[in-house]
Amino acid sequence: MNKIKEVINKIKDLDNKSMQIAQKKLDFLTKPQGSLGRLEDLAKQLAGITGRLNPSLKNKVVFTLAADHGIAEEGVSAFPQEVTAQMVYNFLKGGAGINVLARHVKARVVVVDMGVKEKLKLQSAKLKIKKIGFGTKNFLKEKAMTRVQAKQAVLAGVEVFESEFKKGIDIIGTGDMGIGNTTSSSAIVAAITASAVSDVTGRGTGINEKAFKNKVKLIKQALKLHKPDRKDAMDVLSKVGGFEIAGLAGIILAAAARKVPVVIDGFISGAAALIAYRLCAKVKQYLIAAHCSVEKGHIIALKFMGLKPLLNLDLRLGEGTGAALAMNIVDASLKIMNEMATFESAQVTEKNT
Amino acid sequence: MNKIKEVINKIKDLDNKSMQIAQKKLDFLTKPQGSLGRLEDLAKQLAGITGRLNPSLKNKVVFTLAADHGIAEEGVSAFPQEVTAQMVYNFLKGGAGINVLARHVKARVVVVDMGVKEKLKLQSAKLKIKKIGFGTKNFLKEKAMTRVQAKQAVLAGVEVFESEFKKGIDIIGTGDMGIGNTTSSSAIVAAITASAVSDVTGRGTGINEKAFKNKVKLIKQALKLHKPDRKDAMDVLSKVGGFEIAGLAGIILAAAARKVPVVIDGFISGAAALIAYRLCAKVKQYLIAAHCSVEKGHIIALKFMGLKPLLNLDLRLGEGTGAALAMNIVDASLKIMNEMATFESAQVTEKNT
Repeated sequence: MNKIKEVINKIKDLDNKSMQIAQKKLDFLTKPQGSLGRLEDLAKQLAGITGRLNPSLKNKVVFTLAADHGIAEEGVSAFPQEVTAQMVYNFLKGGAGINVLARHVKARVVVVDMGVKEKLKLQSAKLKIKKIGFGTKNFLKEKAMTRVQAKQAVLAGVEVFESEFKKGIDIIGTGDMGIGNTTSSSAIVAAITASAVSDVTGRGTGINEKAFKNKVKLIKQALKLHKPDRKDAMDVLSKVGGFEIAGLAGIILAAAARKVPVVIDGFISGAAALIAYRLCAKVKQYLIAAHCSVEKGHIIALKFMGLKPLLNLDLRLGEGTGAALAMNIVDASLKIMNEMATFESAQVTEKNT
Repeated sequence: MNKIKEVINKIKDLDNKSMQIAQKKLDFLTKPQGSLGRLEDLAKQLAGITGRLNPSLKNKVVFTLAADHGIAEEGVSAFPQEVTAQMVYNFLKGGAGINVLARHVKARVVVVDMGVKEKLKLQSAKLKIKKIGFGTKNFLKEKAMTRVQAKQAVLAGVEVFESEFKKGIDIIGTGDMGIGNTTSSSAIVAAITASAVSDVTGRGTGINEKAFKNKVKLIKQALKLHKPDRKDAMDVLSKVGGFEIAGLAGIILAAAARKVPVVIDGFISGAAALIAYRLCAKVKQYLIAAHCSVEKGHIIALKFMGLKPLLNLDLRLGEGTGAALAMNIVDASLKIMNEMATFESAQVTEKNT
């Protein structure tokens, strides 16, 4: 835990002075004050995070973390468990949704095996192996992982970020792959936000009504069995979490410690952000919520942290797809702050007072 | 009116066969069916509009139409009327919000003077002069324009589109500039959707409480005076409309007639889309709602047409800024359809049946 504490201790509040200068700059541009809404908020947040008015966003990285879930054996997903590994291969070959959208916004994808059930057969410079185990345990029967494993997984995320940071990172997106991981995420969000399970559980990759009812029932049973302490992120993580979720929490913390903005993708990333937020509330200042997932627990997780999504696209794929798309909006926000004319330079009359 | 009829007669339903093929293609990609939500809807819509699965979106054009409004003399705006012309100069010099965001998405901006109060002093290849008058009349006292002018303005929009279409257009965005034009748009939306004025009126560029109450009162008075026929778009347009709004309606109709997708910007563009929709309901199939404006009448106009915004950015600038941003999402949707691997090609196991 000491190493995680070290990272957390490096997370500071945003640079208020830079944010004030950014606000002033935005207010002199040829538009009614505040009329570019959340683009202006983003520009200001970026200034606060980086301490600069025109930070580079050239090096964009989406971290897509994969792991398997013991709970999948209960039939909570529409897809068989082997799809986790198959999709990792798809990521490495560039054919998945996240590959297409990352190329679209000129981001690179870093894939991490945090705990896929099988030993992956493909080696690639894009793939990092940080296996904590061959999938979590079935949390209906026992803890998903030990507390030691939970910490190892968070630290693995920190290490992944740090090694990529050395190559240059200006902004990151979070992403996930793991058959069964909406079940784990619903359990995490229910536990931490103290929400009813039925309010934070959706149909994942597309299960039918019967399987959905069973999913809700299983999560309730698991929470009753384990009684996770909602104030203790490591307790929640070890009892009902996933290796990729833990790893993402580590990446989020490490990015905030390095003053790098973090674009949060969908439901699983939201659950990971909640874990990071529980470990260090300041982290929320570094977060940008990309979109509002179809998974209804997502918006509850975001609201709990005071975050508001940018896009409204009914996505429910994960992988980092929504985060990639939102990076383009972040780019736009900086261009607004730095490329628009001022009232003075354009000789436009200001608002009546 | 015959020429407008000619354009309307060219507007056809979308190509159903292409949409079916697109749906099939989307369903074979390595993702749970429908999990990319509105990106999939967009790809399908684009296929239906263009009749092609992978249409080029290279030539992007944002039409930013400017005009003045007689109602501005009633103090309905936070900015003086001369700002309309000043902002046109800003557009031509490339310093406005729309210039920055159009560059961001590689769109070109075509600025049209539909009825700015003064004679513009600057000539530019980017500026088209289609002046119907030197601003509309104050519709609190008399009709904003004659019915003949309303038709002329719609046709001017058609002409502007057609002359640009010859240079190559794959997708367009709509945009506006005109001090006082949220007042005109609120009146149009109230009339056509039969909504209460207070439900469709906002604070425009940022008026205070007193001016806002006065704005609502004036719109109510004007609607009482003119009693526009909600089924007759030209009647609504001539009584409480604006030259830029009429021109945008013409552009929208002309684009649909040419099977070109139209990205609708904010409140003023929404009012123009309502006019076009009233003239030809089929036009809605060609529309993509970019974002949900802070102006509360916008979402009412969109819902009336069955449209759902893509972005949630609290914008209220107009000019086409939201439309430009949304073009990037449209680009992404086509890449998803055309660049992702299929279950078969990536050897990923399909959903359990």
